[in-house]
Amino acid sequence: MTDTPHTPLLDRINSPADLRELSDQDLRRVADELRAETISAVSQTGGHLGAGLGVVELTVAIHAVFDTPRDRLIWDVSHQCYPHKILTGRRDRIRTLRQKDGLSGFTKRSESPYDPFGAAHSSTSISAALGFSMARELGGAPDPSLGDGIAVIGDGAMSAGMAYEAMNNAGHLDRRLFVILNDNEMSIAPPVGAMSSYLSRLYAGAPYQELKAAAKGAVSMLPPPFREGARRAHELVKGMTIGGTLFEELGFSYVGPIDGHDLDQLLPVLRTARARATGPVLIHAITKKGKGFRPAEDAADKGHGVSKFNVVTGEQKKAPSNAPSYTKVFAQTLMDEAARDDRIVAVTAAMPDGTGLNLFAERFPKRCFDVGIAEQHGVTFSAGLAGGGMKPFCAIYSTFLQRGYDQVVHDVAIQRLPVRFAIDRAGLVGADGATHAGAFDTAFLSNLPGFVVMAAADEAELRHMVATAVAHDDGPIAFRFPRGEGTGVDMPERGVPLEIGRGRMIQEGRGVAILSFGARLKEVMDASEALRARGITPTIADARFSKPLDRELLLRLAREHDALITIEEGAIGGFGSHVAQLLAEEGVFDTGLRFRSMVLPDIFIDQANPRDMYAVAGLNAEDIEAKVLSVLGIESIGSKGQGAS
Amino acid sequence: MTDTPHTPLLDRINSPADLRELSDQDLRRVADELRAETISAVSQTGGHLGAGLGVVELTVAIHAVFDTPRDRLIWDVSHQCYPHKILTGRRDRIRTLRQKDGLSGFTKRSESPYDPFGAAHSSTSISAALGFSMARELGGAPDPSLGDGIAVIGDGAMSAGMAYEAMNNAGHLDRRLFVILNDNEMSIAPPVGAMSSYLSRLYAGAPYQELKAAAKGAVSMLPPPFREGARRAHELVKGMTIGGTLFEELGFSYVGPIDGHDLDQLLPVLRTARARATGPVLIHAITKKGKGFRPAEDAADKGHGVSKFNVVTGEQKKAPSNAPSYTKVFAQTLMDEAARDDRIVAVTAAMPDGTGLNLFAERFPKRCFDVGIAEQHGVTFSAGLAGGGMKPFCAIYSTFLQRGYDQVVHDVAIQRLPVRFAIDRAGLVGADGATHAGAFDTAFLSNLPGFVVMAAADEAELRHMVATAVAHDDGPIAFRFPRGEGTGVDMPERGVPLEIGRGRMIQEGRGVAILSFGARLKEVMDASEALRARGITPTIADARFSKPLDRELLLRLAREHDALITIEEGAIGGFGSHVAQLLAEEGVFDTGLRFRSMVLPDIFIDQANPRDMYAVAGLNAEDIEAKVLSVLGIESIGSKGQGAS
Repeated sequence: MTDTPHTPLLDRINSPADLRELSDQDLRRVADELRAETISAVSQTGGHLGAGLGVVELTVAIHAVFDTPRDRLIWDVSHQCYPHKILTGRRDRIRTLRQKDGLSGFTKRSESPYDPFGAAHSSTSISAALGFSMARELGGAPDPSLGDGIAVIGDGAMSAGMAYEAMNNAGHLDRRLFVILNDNEMSIAPPVGAMSSYLSRLYAGAPYQELKAAAKGAVSMLPPPFREGARRAHELVKGMTIGGTLFEELGFSYVGPIDGHDLDQLLPVLRTARARATGPVLIHAITKKGKGFRPAEDAADKGHGVSKFNVVTGEQKKAPSNAPSYTKVFAQTLMDEAARDDRIVAVTAAMPDGTGLNLFAERFPKRCFDVGIAEQHGVTFSAGLAGGGMKPFCAIYSTFLQRGYDQVVHDVAIQRLPVRFAIDRAGLVGADGATHAGAFDTAFLSNLPGFVVMAAADEAELRHMVATAVAHDDGPIAFRFPRGEGTGVDMPERGVPLEIGRGRMIQEGRGVAILSFGARLKEVMDASEALRARGITPTIADARFSKPLDRELLLRLAREHDALITIEEGAIGGFGSHVAQLLAEEGVFDTGLRFRSMVLPDIFIDQANPRDMYAVAGLNAEDIEAKVLSVLGIESIGSKGQGAS
Repeated sequence: MTDTPHTPLLDRINSPADLRELSDQDLRRVADELRAETISAVSQTGGHLGAGLGVVELTVAIHAVFDTPRDRLIWDVSHQCYPHKILTGRRDRIRTLRQKDGLSGFTKRSESPYDPFGAAHSSTSISAALGFSMARELGGAPDPSLGDGIAVIGDGAMSAGMAYEAMNNAGHLDRRLFVILNDNEMSIAPPVGAMSSYLSRLYAGAPYQELKAAAKGAVSMLPPPFREGARRAHELVKGMTIGGTLFEELGFSYVGPIDGHDLDQLLPVLRTARARATGPVLIHAITKKGKGFRPAEDAADKGHGVSKFNVVTGEQKKAPSNAPSYTKVFAQTLMDEAARDDRIVAVTAAMPDGTGLNLFAERFPKRCFDVGIAEQHGVTFSAGLAGGGMKPFCAIYSTFLQRGYDQVVHDVAIQRLPVRFAIDRAGLVGADGATHAGAFDTAFLSNLPGFVVMAAADEAELRHMVATAVAHDDGPIAFRFPRGEGTGVDMPERGVPLEIGRGRMIQEGRGVAILSFGARLKEVMDASEALRARGITPTIADARFSKPLDRELLLRLAREHDALITIEEGAIGGFGSHVAQLLAEEGVFDTGLRFRSMVLPDIFIDQANPRDMYAVAGLNAEDIEAKVLSVLGIESIGSKGQGAS
């Protein structure tokens, strides 16, 4: 487990420049060693394994052929960037992947000049690469000077409208740009949608053995001067490459499909493309997610995200879980409700496993829709379903719901359609870091007229909130819940709809009241326990709703206490801001109230385990305790400053 | 001008059911009368003229062939819905279009069962129609029972990724669904992008005279059972319809192109499609925006949005303007800056005229990018440009920036890339109503770490803010400004960069301080004038920045006054919330401060002129006056309640 593989050639690669000195044969050996090193590293850190293994040869080929970092290489989503990191001067830290203070699991501008554009959400790479291409054209000249823009994007990411928007614009601008379609027939889940079928058809009739020869011939004709009207040359290439019309209709030269694990195909294709392209080129490479590591290849998710594992057996070391995950509670509760109410349907944007809807889909295949990486469509599709009398549960992570924000406003909120938003991964999420933090949803939903917004304090609450959402048919409703395990609380057999806009008292105390929104409640309870030693018993309430607010509860807490502290797993503008607005309007501040609102601080917080991230955020029990002491004017020892904005 | 056209047949149409009793020949006459009525109505109200005139025949044909409202007809964007409103029982109110308490300029669920899904932002129709289709499949049964889903979408709207996401999903689900592509080679501006070139090629080789015959033949073969493998039939249709492959690759049966103004083509094509379709069908109709009204046909924008006009001459009655529009000041200032700094580039998402960037594009054609209706791509493309050393100004209306929110967070803010966001139409916008309100941007941007967010109090301030954005190269910066004319203030020759995070004192007073963020400042000044009669002189400051806040100014205002009122043209969660958070953290509320935050209320506000809309919002001078009096405990006569959340 802890021994590292034998990698004599890889050991000599300090940067991509070293690759360019090697023979093609040596590059193949480097690729093999790089694969072994990737497996070894991820066996120790856990992380995204399958994606990286699928692009080992592609990574070697791109860095060998292109002049990175002058050429700007952008990995879409960048789950697949570990081999790239190993080759670009970060091998010595590769076993710190996704750890606190370690390498990010994604590309990151601040980490390396070889990461010109970070990514973690899908389908941004073509847009960014096109930006670099046009900047070069206009003389943009940062250090290093600008070369070509190269985007490596998976077939799953192609289902996102953003990729289409970018191709549409790139075809129009018609400038040198390389898009490498890494087609492994897998995104996180098996990809869905017509584009996926289309890609399958593209290479269905093209066995590799024939293509080896064809590819070289086709590439020698690059670029097909389609726009200049030389139709004959175009037809020739088109005939040889078997299809590709969809990309060509969008203005791209299409090359492929080629075997993305065969450097004998990759190297000449990339070299010729680089030498000859004058406009946008799409290179279609067929790869296998998890390639070269049997346990990953055999897994249903192709080793998408793994825990630490044994490199021989592939066996993963999962930490024992003490309580069901929020995700599972959501999914199981929704299934229970759906068994009783056949108007319930579920929508996911390419995250059936992550949202737990894979379980729902197994049981109710016709009532579960995976729309692809397409949050914009997913939200409005849900609105259409609601308009058609269904009860759609649109299950999207907080961070990805940002993708469908306009649709939430324009198609759901303004029309007051009863779409139910199940918002998983609310708050800080751990190893995925800042790009995946669910920080903003409470703010961007709670100011939408007619919305109901809830946050679950524990998994039992989540069950009640699912039931509440089923029952609420008079406008949109959202409930947010964190990543990971619940608190281990007793679970009710069945959820009971909550009264809309009513919080609940948890503990009657005096002097100071803490009003919690969401899953920080456990930390609040722990803080209360610690405060007991000082003779302080805070009143504790669970707001449940950030919208509508429980006015009565709020005014009572304000009236009966010297101090009121709100806490939430979200940025400013959300729950605490709504409470402050209400208290201000009611004149509560006129005569004085020690009011504090604990929110995520005004920084993006790097990956670590959630507890450590919340320590940085100043939202753990000890921070709450310190806040209570400070608001009461009591000196606390060892309390930390809180970085609120 | 005020006389209405002679419309004997149209007068007999009370609902689409009446159309279905008519002969095809009478339908043609109805169309002619409907066109005349549309022109007459818009001549009196102003509004979106060209789009409606382009779909007169399509509107008649759809309602004659399909069983609306049981069949759910969804007009994309719905600029083109006036003829539809005339035919669906709203003719008696058609001359109230876009007026206070009148018909909406868009489709609207609350207005009619013939509007099953409202729209105003682009490219949502296919998603919504697919939602209805699947709801029907699952037995969704509101009143009236569910028929087919029909989306009418323009070629411009096809540049949006959302339309692609929806087609990708529709092709995959393979259920009955009708998408009518209304191809007029115009969106608001001439459309851009490879899709547009593609559509042109599609019908370039297909003169109508040949197609008349071909269309009937082609349609008689519908549906091409492509997925069932009957390739021969498919090839036949494909050959006859000349192209269409891109849509077919996405799983649609493609019919067309047909002449969208010829009922002899439209009626049989729609009838056959309706009778035979089992999967998604795309019907490609070629139309002319502004068709049948010469002044519109001849206009560069094809009569997209017009003021009241003379129906004979087409001459529009524009109100005389007293001050330059904010939009123009932005554009001219940006051009001045761009003349001095060749790193400045501009990006618009299909709104060159609306954002003023048409002027910029004329002067700096290589430095202006119209990316199409593609805000997601536009934002990340801007981020790429910034990464490549340019100074991109991404000019997007507040309401449309919601479309690119995730890209703002993930690609711009987290990477701290210096993209400049010019946010036009901030606040309430008038006749376009709730769907176009710029209500949420201050909230959804100000909580992003590293962002600078400004609002212009007047057009001179806007000029300074453009200069500030040019100078600020260390992270993202946004400035918002309202629709319409400036205040007529003296304009500085050249903008001077503001100190980041510093507000300015406008007037020293006592007792109460008003801190304004944005263009409500004029109303604050008017309120101050009115208060003078009562011997009250409020201190007035312009915050300029919602992020970072001017802490010093804030604390001084709090310290030196009994009351502090913030005001902004935005929803809760924005400027006022950030001020409240700071004051709370600083302990200002501990000892009491009469703090109030005036924000947009918790309702979506229907169209009216902006002043009337702000009256509903409670943010006009008289509301500010009343707020000051109430916070000072002085009885005011005739003050209105404010509907804050």
